Amino acid sequence: MPQTPHTERHFTASDVVRDVVIGMADGLTVPFALAAGLSGAIAQTSIVVTAGLAEIAAGSIAMGLGGYLAAKSDADHYAAEQRREVQEVIDKPREEMEEVADIFRVYGMTEEQIEPVVEAMRRRPKQWVDFMMRFELGLEKPEPGRARTSAMVIAGAYIAGGLIPLAPYMLLGNASTALVVSVVLTLLALAIFGFVKGRYTGARPLRSAIQTTLTGGLAAGAAFAIARAIA
Amino acid sequence: MPQTPHTERHFTASDVVRDVVIGMADGLTVPFALAAGLSGAIAQTSIVVTAGLAEIAAGSIAMGLGGYLAAKSDADHYAAEQRREVQEVIDKPREEMEEVADIFRVYGMTEEQIEPVVEAMRRRPKQWVDFMMRFELGLEKPEPGRARTSAMVIAGAYIAGGLIPLAPYMLLGNASTALVVSVVLTLLALAIFGFVKGRYTGARPLRSAIQTTLTGGLAAGAAFAIARAIA
Repeated sequence: MPQTPHTERHFTASDVVRDVVIGMADGLTVPFALAAGLSGAIAQTSIVVTAGLAEIAAGSIAMGLGGYLAAKSDADHYAAEQRREVQEVIDKPREEMEEVADIFRVYGMTEEQIEPVVEAMRRRPKQWVDFMMRFELGLEKPEPGRARTSAMVIAGAYIAGGLIPLAPYMLLGNASTALVVSVVLTLLALAIFGFVKGRYTGARPLRSAIQTTLTGGLAAGAAFAIARAIA
Repeated sequence: MPQTPHTERHFTASDVVRDVVIGMADGLTVPFALAAGLSGAIAQTSIVVTAGLAEIAAGSIAMGLGGYLAAKSDADHYAAEQRREVQEVIDKPREEMEEVADIFRVYGMTEEQIEPVVEAMRRRPKQWVDFMMRFELGLEKPEPGRARTSAMVIAGAYIAGGLIPLAPYMLLGNASTALVVSVVLTLLALAIFGFVKGRYTGARPLRSAIQTTLTGGLAAGAAFAIARAIA
């Protein structure tokens, strides 16, 4: 089938875009909110910067390793299920043929219509296993090397995102001036990030920009209120 | 088909378990790492507690809203794609029939075997759309009310996880004593959480416990080293 414009309209974000979004969404939000919160309670920018950098280190490592382990466990899960399906197709072909038939019964197909499909599967065990992986278990084959790339991209995006709200505290001596600059800078960055994210993920860009900015603003506002209340 | 033990062996975590895991993994790790990092640079437990609570507020809101928006955008995406498929089945049935055929060609089925399947779809437009949603686009129908539940569960798990490493700083006056108690308590909590998570998600529990503990430990160690280096 030739590539039609129709196919291209069903847009889904690539894995790398998804990882950048995961890392940057939290990187822009949490260090921003923490720094804003602390500056509501503590006048020294040095403590805000220390806490902010500690948070960026902790957050980027935690999220990066989290992404690594998630991708690794997806790959392990896929491999384990594939081994099981390969064995089951050999050990109990009748049950597996029933399972193929079940998939199609849901869509209202009759036994006469289902039979040739089941028969086709039975003749090609390799494709049969692939079919069961995707349609019975809903699993996609993971890319090799995915876990390491995913970890790097998430951690890098978190660090890049986190340094934006922190920069004013590093460059300006006064915590309340730094807070104002950080708020303006980060809300702007969140809006741009939300807009671009919307473009890439097929959501409405303007709506995505507003949502992302509100999330960061709400988180920072809550952190600020709590820090001020207890300090 | 009767429920066989075979079907049950393919275990996948429910959405709620997944949300608890998402919230608690970060809740146990990031506030822990931040508090440990700060106590490497600052002797006052009150500042560590303020920063920790500000982080928990920021992190739980950011992650909770993130989960809400993700679930909402999944639901929107599903609804939009479904409307498009419904329209396409009416407007260009031939292209859509070709797409059904393409799905089966990948699995090595012949045109004679594919024809009755395509014919069955054509007769039942509702099932046809459901089939295309799941097998062409790989989309599962989202549960109604999912976004709100997801947000609550993620945020609640983050708060519950985050209060564990922070409790020693709240109860003990001395930062270095609190640090030791917090490290022991949180690594233990991470190990238990990893073990239970492994059980629920079908991974090897012991391996999952070690991975979760190492992630938290590494993140906290890095935050500690960075905070001490710049303070």
